[in-house]
Amino acid sequence: MARVVVEVMPKPEILDPQGKAISGGLTRLGFTGFGEVRQGKRFELEVDGEATEEVLAQAREAAEKLLSNPVIENVVAVRVAEDAS
Amino acid sequence: MARVVVEVMPKPEILDPQGKAISGGLTRLGFTGFGEVRQGKRFELEVDGEATEEVLAQAREAAEKLLSNPVIENVVAVRVAEDAS
Repeated sequence: MARVVVEVMPKPEILDPQGKAISGGLTRLGFTGFGEVRQGKRFELEVDGEATEEVLAQAREAAEKLLSNPVIENVVAVRVAEDAS
Repeated sequence: MARVVVEVMPKPEILDPQGKAISGGLTRLGFTGFGEVRQGKRFELEVDGEATEEVLAQAREAAEKLLSNPVIENVVAVRVAEDAS
């Protein structure tokens, strides 16, 4: 049983109020070394059998059609999960 | 300007209704090669200067204190971002 990881982030030009709120929270908690924070989504898709190139291509297509909103988000990674999480 | 990526996932034993809904959606769209889907969060933290080991340790502490809920979530990765996303 393999797993494919899909990572989706808001496009850079899109305002990210969630990220801004987190950035403020980090400063208040004393974490001063960080600037802008952006929050996106991470998906794990269980795959029947091996995660072949064809499966990765299917996962990328699914990411673009269902797991992300192409108007405001970019699919930034589609890869085979290395570890058990 | 470096960026640190933090990835957070729901603990395996936690029910993930969002993931179930996505899994159903994938099947309806004709993506049949996938089983269970789980959805988590992906953060990008902008770092002033280099992403040193000390910065990564700070990012992990921030992830456990602010970016995740330790009762229901695991921090599954804290790493330096390789690409521009």
